[in-house]
Amino acid sequence: MSGNSFGKALVLTTFGESHGVALGGVLDGLPANLEIDLEFVQSEIYRRKSGKVFFSSPRNENDKLEILSGLFEGRSTGAPIAFVIYNHDQKSSDYDHLKETFRPSHADYTWQQKYGIRDVRGGGRSSARETLARVAGGAFAKIYLQQQGIKINAGISQIGEFTLSEPAAGISDPQILSWLEKLKSEGDTTGGVISCAITGVPAGLGEPVFDKLQADLAKAMLSINAVKGFEYGSGFRGASMRGSEHNDLFIHEEGRIKTLTNNSGGIQGGISNGEEIFFRVAFKPVSTLMKDQQSVNSSGEATTIKGKGRHDVCVVPRALPIVEAMAALVIADHLIRNSSSG
Amino acid sequence: MSGNSFGKALVLTTFGESHGVALGGVLDGLPANLEIDLEFVQSEIYRRKSGKVFFSSPRNENDKLEILSGLFEGRSTGAPIAFVIYNHDQKSSDYDHLKETFRPSHADYTWQQKYGIRDVRGGGRSSARETLARVAGGAFAKIYLQQQGIKINAGISQIGEFTLSEPAAGISDPQILSWLEKLKSEGDTTGGVISCAITGVPAGLGEPVFDKLQADLAKAMLSINAVKGFEYGSGFRGASMRGSEHNDLFIHEEGRIKTLTNNSGGIQGGISNGEEIFFRVAFKPVSTLMKDQQSVNSSGEATTIKGKGRHDVCVVPRALPIVEAMAALVIADHLIRNSSSG
Amino acid sequence: MSGNSFGKALVLTTFGESHGVALGGVLDGLPANLEIDLEFVQSEIYRRKSGKVFFSSPRNENDKLEILSGLFEGRSTGAPIAFVIYNHDQKSSDYDHLKETFRPSHADYTWQQKYGIRDVRGGGRSSARETLARVAGGAFAKIYLQQQGIKINAGISQIGEFTLSEPAAGISDPQILSWLEKLKSEGDTTGGVISCAITGVPAGLGEPVFDKLQADLAKAMLSINAVKGFEYGSGFRGASMRGSEHNDLFIHEEGRIKTLTNNSGGIQGGISNGEEIFFRVAFKPVSTLMKDQQSVNSSGEATTIKGKGRHDVCVVPRALPIVEAMAALVIADHLIRNSSSG
Amino acid sequence: MSGNSFGKALVLTTFGESHGVALGGVLDGLPANLEIDLEFVQSEIYRRKSGKVFFSSPRNENDKLEILSGLFEGRSTGAPIAFVIYNHDQKSSDYDHLKETFRPSHADYTWQQKYGIRDVRGGGRSSARETLARVAGGAFAKIYLQQQGIKINAGISQIGEFTLSEPAAGISDPQILSWLEKLKSEGDTTGGVISCAITGVPAGLGEPVFDKLQADLAKAMLSINAVKGFEYGSGFRGASMRGSEHNDLFIHEEGRIKTLTNNSGGIQGGISNGEEIFFRVAFKPVSTLMKDQQSVNSSGEATTIKGKGRHDVCVVPRALPIVEAMAALVIADHLIRNSSSG
Repeated sequence: MSGNSFGKALVLTTFGESHGVALGGVLDGLPANLEIDLEFVQSEIYRRKSGKVFFSSPRNENDKLEILSGLFEGRSTGAPIAFVIYNHDQKSSDYDHLKETFRPSHADYTWQQKYGIRDVRGGGRSSARETLARVAGGAFAKIYLQQQGIKINAGISQIGEFTLSEPAAGISDPQILSWLEKLKSEGDTTGGVISCAITGVPAGLGEPVFDKLQADLAKAMLSINAVKGFEYGSGFRGASMRGSEHNDLFIHEEGRIKTLTNNSGGIQGGISNGEEIFFRVAFKPVSTLMKDQQSVNSSGEATTIKGKGRHDVCVVPRALPIVEAMAALVIADHLIRNSSSG
Repeated sequence: MSGNSFGKALVLTTFGESHGVALGGVLDGLPANLEIDLEFVQSEIYRRKSGKVFFSSPRNENDKLEILSGLFEGRSTGAPIAFVIYNHDQKSSDYDHLKETFRPSHADYTWQQKYGIRDVRGGGRSSARETLARVAGGAFAKIYLQQQGIKINAGISQIGEFTLSEPAAGISDPQILSWLEKLKSEGDTTGGVISCAITGVPAGLGEPVFDKLQADLAKAMLSINAVKGFEYGSGFRGASMRGSEHNDLFIHEEGRIKTLTNNSGGIQGGISNGEEIFFRVAFKPVSTLMKDQQSVNSSGEATTIKGKGRHDVCVVPRALPIVEAMAALVIADHLIRNSSSG
Repeated sequence: MSGNSFGKALVLTTFGESHGVALGGVLDGLPANLEIDLEFVQSEIYRRKSGKVFFSSPRNENDKLEILSGLFEGRSTGAPIAFVIYNHDQKSSDYDHLKETFRPSHADYTWQQKYGIRDVRGGGRSSARETLARVAGGAFAKIYLQQQGIKINAGISQIGEFTLSEPAAGISDPQILSWLEKLKSEGDTTGGVISCAITGVPAGLGEPVFDKLQADLAKAMLSINAVKGFEYGSGFRGASMRGSEHNDLFIHEEGRIKTLTNNSGGIQGGISNGEEIFFRVAFKPVSTLMKDQQSVNSSGEATTIKGKGRHDVCVVPRALPIVEAMAALVIADHLIRNSSSG
Repeated sequence: MSGNSFGKALVLTTFGESHGVALGGVLDGLPANLEIDLEFVQSEIYRRKSGKVFFSSPRNENDKLEILSGLFEGRSTGAPIAFVIYNHDQKSSDYDHLKETFRPSHADYTWQQKYGIRDVRGGGRSSARETLARVAGGAFAKIYLQQQGIKINAGISQIGEFTLSEPAAGISDPQILSWLEKLKSEGDTTGGVISCAITGVPAGLGEPVFDKLQADLAKAMLSINAVKGFEYGSGFRGASMRGSEHNDLFIHEEGRIKTLTNNSGGIQGGISNGEEIFFRVAFKPVSTLMKDQQSVNSSGEATTIKGKGRHDVCVVPRALPIVEAMAALVIADHLIRNSSSG
């Protein structure tokens, strides 16, 4: 029983390997008659390619999206939307040296154990390049949400040990930039934290008791490569608070019921309450280093993994649209699911 | 589209309200021919009732489990196992005062918004009492896992601002105990953190790309009432590490491939690697206070919620078997799912 | 991966064995705020017990339904509705002789092969008594459909070789009755055909391409014990028609678009078109005979199955509410699913 | 909640419209390490194009399959297999006249009612051309089944009113051929019946109580365009039989338990018993006629549908590989599901 589909009412199924023919997905369940701005979808894919050289892998991913089905005269028809991004830069031979060795903290060993076979080219399906299809699928969800007044905004709030005062779309702090340059020169990498805020969500989204809105957001985030943690509202900090300071008191203001504080992060009892939803996602450091590492091969013999090619120093800047895409899929799924609750 | 079922190959569906006739569940997909020790299942339910008076609500929940189906001569048959726990202490009138008011940081407001109706008696289905059925269902999963050599162990690692040196099954530290007594005398509450370790899991569990093992664990944990965060392996701390210190180097030892460190928390690329799986779960402070709080009623008018009855100061000690039960359901589900992967 | 749940948006999970503690189910996804007439639900269960002695097994099934959850002050709340019917007549010893033998055309052999264990008491979960929970679950679906103006009506259209001129709720034809008496005296049984009509269904129900309305109806019917065939609209007869006589021409009448004929059976392209939906379901003869039959035991040795106890001569009269219940679950499921299509 | 996916453990998701960019699918859950003969998959697609001119639509569908993912060095990897067939013959203007009218017994009216929009080009997603992706997906399932010794064989057993003595892969009877020529010259069409036999299925496939093997086969068949009925084993004929002639007596022969007769069609209690599985599927006459028909447009005004282009006289010969493909998907799904039952 595989797990390449996400969502219950709005279902994204993705496929494709890093160095295979193509990556893509099928989005099933998007309401009919939505005007689809394909340039927006393409622009989301481009956002995933970070601009700054020291963050990004220089492999030329032009990543042009092709729509195969589901649209008619610029609108969704209720039929599944299939899309594909062909890979143009498939030098498989680059990866021959990985056929028999397991890179540390990658998926090489576990996939081999699970399936008895793996596509070694660039990590195959375990590559972060798989998230391309999530960004595309999420962009369609965003289009739907935008038409409902819902906005999703992710920002960097931590890079390595540097905490940003405000979540940001990029890094401009010279101190952080020079530290990243230093890491890069050492062939090393780092992690970080992304914060995400969702506004305009009506009260009522989320399905008790297992499909609580935060439960589906947590699953969505932890399904992203390199994510190690998720917290919403007060999060881990809430564990050390008192009930009397944590409780969000209700007030009536501007004709509606609101809360004075928002430690709940916009979700109570698993259901959105109309306040801003916000959460944080922790990413581990990139596992591919530009320095040698000890490892073993499939026979258990010691071997050295050479640091070659060029890779990201930190995945966080490129992960912003991925976090947003997964959040959009969750909120859109629950918006559709909720249409039949009462 | 409701969400009262959990799992794909091993599916637990739960039902019941805090002060309704009964709570219970249906567990579908447990392999046939397992010897079932019903006393163990009952003992897990009793574990959920904390022993220490200052933690627990004194309501007498005798919580006797009745099996309705799925067993024959002490063994599972492959048919769904239904179980029920009747409620014996249903003084609904205690809750009449809540009919028109929304308790802060409870699910009262959101359920009313979603469904236009709610069972006001003790929180109805949003009550933590719903987790009884999870503990029962999880106990069956544990029996299956134990026969595969898999063990799950949760412990308290933080209560309020107190961090324990080792995760523990209960609180014996006098300093913490006296602080909890003080909180109780003030009618206040606190949160905490639970750590959970799973040993004996074979390599290969977890389904790329969306049903990664950590993604399903995260969903399981965030579906528990009062949970605000989840992290596994290095977790949020991993975000500030360097790749060169975070990567878990492979070695060959005692006839098998292992890792030198375990920042991966036993999961790489979404699939278990045979090392110990561990994660941490943050709980917010209990929302029910024994002191008055300001709120609004359904007409938006200001009102006061009286602190009456007696409730837990901290939910964490009682939540240990719940965390274990949900973890057991996830691991058992993936063990069954994996039987067809290769 | 078990299969004890039916439906996608409205999900019925059933449990229970013929001679176990109880049978029952959990219905998840029924919209909130529906007024529930529990006497109607109970009356549907009583309909399943046929009145005429020569059709029915005389075992006293008083079959009192108990509601465990999901209702509050007479209304659905959006929470799962759990219900249970306790078995009161459990003489397991009656079935000891079946422990080692396989009754012809029953599920004894296949369940033993699949699970390596089976509940031998009265067929266990493979007994037609399992359909009790379907009738109860379907009754809730009917309540929902009735409030939308949708009615479901099943009738007997064939008993053995006798075709009725009009589908009927019971048998009054003296010729058929005397033939059934004769069958009974010979310890033999027969099959029949049920016709079902659904009126008031709006255009638009059914989900291309796999969850066509007729596909889900077919699955629902073939999941009922003893069913051997399903056809809708022109059915098997349509195979020998010409397109020019089969096509249902559209007309505009009484302010709406209708069809002149209805060979489509109310469904075109898998989606309801607003006309009457009708289909036919074939039932095989009851497998339990009141005469001796040759068989083998689990060691493959020849043995004789004694015809003892008393059983139905024909299951068709008792199957009417089962066919209606399954049809109601399908239509209600699709009504809810369709709420988000456009 | 859309319905473009089929299966639970082996899931085929299809996409594409008759005159859109492409049709295709994603097959998720095929076991890893299977040798995949892509020429076989392509040959199944070609089988769907009937050879005889009077059956087939002359539109040149070269239908070349492209694999996008999931294979590595000729083997399945456990990752989803995505495939696509580009449309090369997209003269959309041919269909402009259908934009405002509803063809009788097609899906035009119902899709318009459901979605408020429809792709009018050649029926869009409701076209039988959608089944291309089923044939491709089913071919992968067949490869898996063949390696388990399971074979699926469909044949024509009825064309219009002509019943064949033996199910056949094509029509060679001169009487039937001349009648079909006559129908064609009149611009008319006819239906037929396909019989399908599955051999080599082990005992134990099928999941009680709702996912009985025959229930999933019935759903699979009724999800195919133009299908009106399904029966297995004794089918509708069984309704008029006596229990004493219908029951399949067990015998022990050649070292295993078998049945003397096979009215059960290889399935008892919803689970395969090791005998041959067989069923019959009724197809209605093709709805597209080469003669004028009365209809209405979207405003309800009377209009005439012109018979133009060239279309199949009878869909049955082309439907053989579709029936086999859907059967293969069901059996493969249940084979995988059964791997965890006991």
